[in-house]
Amino acid sequence: MPDYKAPMRDMRFLVDEVFDFHTSYAALGATDASPDMVSAILEEGAKFCEQVLAPINRSGDEQECQFDNGVVTTPEGFKEAFALYVEGGWNGLAADPAYGGQGLPHSLGLMISEMVGASNTSWGMYPGLTHGAMSAIHAHGSEAQKQTYLTKLTEGTWTGTMCLTEAHCGTDLGIIKTRAVPQADGSYSLTGSKIFISAGEHDMSQNIVHLVLAKLPDAPAGTKGISLFIVPKFLPDPATGEAGERNGVSCGSIEHKMGIKASATCVINFDGARGFLIGELNKGLNCMFTMMNHARLGTGMQGLCLGEASFQGAIKYANERLQMRSLTGPKAPEKAADPIIVHPDVRRMLLTMKAFNQGNRALAYFTAQLLDQAHRADSAEAREEAENLLALLTPICKAFMTETGLEVTNHGMQVFGGHGFIREWGMEQLVRDCRIAPIYEGTNGIQALDLLGRKVLGSQGKLLRGFTRIVHKFCEAQAANPQFSTYVSQLSGLNKQWGELTQQIGMAAMKNPDEVGAASMDYLMFSGYVILAYLWLRMALVASDKLAAGSGDAEFYQAKLATCEFYFKRLLPRTATHLAAAQAGSDCMMSMSAESLAF
Amino acid sequence: MPDYKAPMRDMRFLVDEVFDFHTSYAALGATDASPDMVSAILEEGAKFCEQVLAPINRSGDEQECQFDNGVVTTPEGFKEAFALYVEGGWNGLAADPAYGGQGLPHSLGLMISEMVGASNTSWGMYPGLTHGAMSAIHAHGSEAQKQTYLTKLTEGTWTGTMCLTEAHCGTDLGIIKTRAVPQADGSYSLTGSKIFISAGEHDMSQNIVHLVLAKLPDAPAGTKGISLFIVPKFLPDPATGEAGERNGVSCGSIEHKMGIKASATCVINFDGARGFLIGELNKGLNCMFTMMNHARLGTGMQGLCLGEASFQGAIKYANERLQMRSLTGPKAPEKAADPIIVHPDVRRMLLTMKAFNQGNRALAYFTAQLLDQAHRADSAEAREEAENLLALLTPICKAFMTETGLEVTNHGMQVFGGHGFIREWGMEQLVRDCRIAPIYEGTNGIQALDLLGRKVLGSQGKLLRGFTRIVHKFCEAQAANPQFSTYVSQLSGLNKQWGELTQQIGMAAMKNPDEVGAASMDYLMFSGYVILAYLWLRMALVASDKLAAGSGDAEFYQAKLATCEFYFKRLLPRTATHLAAAQAGSDCMMSMSAESLAF
Repeated sequence: MPDYKAPMRDMRFLVDEVFDFHTSYAALGATDASPDMVSAILEEGAKFCEQVLAPINRSGDEQECQFDNGVVTTPEGFKEAFALYVEGGWNGLAADPAYGGQGLPHSLGLMISEMVGASNTSWGMYPGLTHGAMSAIHAHGSEAQKQTYLTKLTEGTWTGTMCLTEAHCGTDLGIIKTRAVPQADGSYSLTGSKIFISAGEHDMSQNIVHLVLAKLPDAPAGTKGISLFIVPKFLPDPATGEAGERNGVSCGSIEHKMGIKASATCVINFDGARGFLIGELNKGLNCMFTMMNHARLGTGMQGLCLGEASFQGAIKYANERLQMRSLTGPKAPEKAADPIIVHPDVRRMLLTMKAFNQGNRALAYFTAQLLDQAHRADSAEAREEAENLLALLTPICKAFMTETGLEVTNHGMQVFGGHGFIREWGMEQLVRDCRIAPIYEGTNGIQALDLLGRKVLGSQGKLLRGFTRIVHKFCEAQAANPQFSTYVSQLSGLNKQWGELTQQIGMAAMKNPDEVGAASMDYLMFSGYVILAYLWLRMALVASDKLAAGSGDAEFYQAKLATCEFYFKRLLPRTATHLAAAQAGSDCMMSMSAESLAF
Repeated sequence: MPDYKAPMRDMRFLVDEVFDFHTSYAALGATDASPDMVSAILEEGAKFCEQVLAPINRSGDEQECQFDNGVVTTPEGFKEAFALYVEGGWNGLAADPAYGGQGLPHSLGLMISEMVGASNTSWGMYPGLTHGAMSAIHAHGSEAQKQTYLTKLTEGTWTGTMCLTEAHCGTDLGIIKTRAVPQADGSYSLTGSKIFISAGEHDMSQNIVHLVLAKLPDAPAGTKGISLFIVPKFLPDPATGEAGERNGVSCGSIEHKMGIKASATCVINFDGARGFLIGELNKGLNCMFTMMNHARLGTGMQGLCLGEASFQGAIKYANERLQMRSLTGPKAPEKAADPIIVHPDVRRMLLTMKAFNQGNRALAYFTAQLLDQAHRADSAEAREEAENLLALLTPICKAFMTETGLEVTNHGMQVFGGHGFIREWGMEQLVRDCRIAPIYEGTNGIQALDLLGRKVLGSQGKLLRGFTRIVHKFCEAQAANPQFSTYVSQLSGLNKQWGELTQQIGMAAMKNPDEVGAASMDYLMFSGYVILAYLWLRMALVASDKLAAGSGDAEFYQAKLATCEFYFKRLLPRTATHLAAAQAGSDCMMSMSAESLAF
């Protein structure tokens, strides 16, 4: 198992030097998040992840969660780690102080969750789902619901879930069958079965708060008839507020999966369970989107997390493993062979990993800064600007970061050769754990449709222009910078193509809506590569300035410049392929009958 | 678990219509392989794979091989299936009649092994390794060794292995430590430990014949001091020829792997084991290459096999799973939702799978026909021509077919959404089983170096020109064909770029050998896409002719034309990215120090 060390230098580079979180924290009134405090929190978080979570990652995969007659037992150490996490105050870090949280910026919470996910993705699912439930209750719950549930979720004695999927529907929530029948006391009686419920049942908390999508008997058909309910495993005791009577909720079984085996993926059965409406009737999907946007960003982060873990394993191995001589003559003549890091093709894999990880981290932190702005900015304009950029970036974060994260973990495994396939080395687990990320929280295909259909074309290009304008201004400002002129003109050209491609698809889609679905995935990937190019260039500019100013740490900044060069030369050309594919039209996909396709 | 049905229609299309195996069989004197006989063999083989091997594929993955004190037990049904396989005469199908084989063409053996690998990749490893050992003994063994070992391996009572890798070396065989000390009787005493030995120990045969690379005490350093030895688990009884006294060979443990879990991957210890030199002293690597070329083609096939199995699962699911409505209006208004095959992005995945599978099958059969020619052609020129093309195509088959096969299995899993991640559906197993293929038998990075460094540049471009000339002639012949003019000119242009790219890299490599390693992987993938374009166009031409002739089966041929169009429009553009990356040079990869790379 690769040891995990939080990439503090790179995190600080983004926080302090590239995005200057301190200024934005101050401007947003997040005065508790002083530079010293941020630094202390990151260091303590790193310690917790490195020392508590990383050591139980491999064993968790081998032990898996166990199911026995409705009871789920998590692997050794998981429960204890959660207790330490709660005790350390990590669970309520970014939560509302009105309900027991520490009120620190969401971006800081995201940095902690990066370290959690990189050291133990399965374990991270439990607090991750809880945070999703917290955000939904915070946004849509009544004051009484917040007092009852949010307080407990924030203190970490209770955990949360989101219950959407049923056996016959995942993407298509309009056809769910779970029913909620109104009761005389204003509560609802829920009956139905949900599948794929992460953290649906486990032994880590006193109570589990399910947020459940269901339909009233007379609800309108489709997604317009979906409501959201709070359904606790144990009903809160009215007197004490503690977990009381057992509700009609039970875990029917857990799934046997390819990866994240220590995360309990449950079938949850509701048999006349008592539930409480959250938000408005038939507006459940809107409420759930609060949770899903949170979860989508979190899922995107898993691509980064597992990519980072894989890189740390691969770079260590590449420096230690001796195999063959460098093509340009022995580099370690005193040894039986050279370390494999001398071989260009091994470097190709390592640099691809590095460029994606650090680019994806920049994308995540850029997005997290917008999250802070959306939550805390004084002016409605500033909040709306941030919301619009978030709407555009969320599906890209989810899909691009998980597609590239999966590629990264596969490279990491490949660097290990045959040993990469052996479980004890831990590299193949990262691939398996990562493989779910392009699927859940809305498949990447769905993200692509959300991006192109709903966000970009649905806003007549407005949401896209909100971002391309940023890139355009950046390129204009750097046009006279001789050091980066090639890259700036490459980025500027792609930024222009992005808009043109959008117009082309938009025009074609007016005649044939299938053109959107035919182009969407390649459109999303094209978008992701352009965004990372912009972010890599911003990082390179900072690195270059620091080097010019002689501010020390020269090797770190030179590595940034070299990785940026690698990104532009070896990865950004993928835009050509995505562009061509996105422009290829739907005919060559739709003309064949379903029967012919099977031949 | 997806049911496996051998893709007989597509196999026959290639055998009968595209490559006309019957004419080449007749020309090569393979008179036993009459059209009727070939047809009967394929049908019987399909039946065996569908009915015997496919049903024990999922259970094999769950049960894994078990190790207890040197004894390896294969999963339920594996042993019985092997007995049936031997009984059915499948093991000796393409083997030399002089040693009990049926002497049928190698291409026919490859078609059977495609069906075996697609229905149960893990199981296929046991006969697969045996066939590799048979080809090495056939090519390099003495007559006595052939009588003793080849006869038993052909009849399937004994099985074979190849023992190359040691803990400290896989790619770099020059540094192996296993020692072979000459004995007075002409045999050798072998001591050392080998790892990753597929089929190294199991319960399916009476004896296991290890082919072991080792060094004599006074052997020259590096690969020039490696010899190959036959080391049987049980020494043949001189009187009866049957397995006799136990040799000093034992299985120390088996690996716990990501996939192919029912294939025993063993640590094999040699403790003064008696071994017999095969071929010349210190020429062991040459002998092993006979086996490795066989194994490399076989590994490439695994990409096709698992891709085919995945496609069969995905197409069925896409027709059955109801989710959302088509963007162009309901297609199954009587149902709660449309089958997901109506969605363009699902079709993008399915067509990518189909285009790679059928393209890779064409590549495999094209190569198999060359294999027959190399083995059987009358004239030395014809044999050499085939050998040269095989030398070029083998690393491409191995690496391109496994890279794209892995992509295909990942698409297949993605089509299933969340269910794809659940083990019982069987789709994720295909990804795990496929993930080893880009690694073993020489990582794909090594294949790429072999292709570009050894084969293409090492022959001053001669081996490449042997293929580009075929493409060039084909394009010239089709230049006036209006139906395919766009594709022909696309192929022709790429074929020219292939040569130019080779020259560019060759020139750059004269100054800096690292340029080869920097470009090699993208060069190989570029090559693979061009070759598949050529083969897709050949298939499309046949389909078009058949349609024009009104020879029935119109839907099959129309599907070929549509898939060809998809390949050219949506997959072939990837060449642009590989070209740009291969031309990017080594500087952006090699300039960073190993320390800086780790930042």
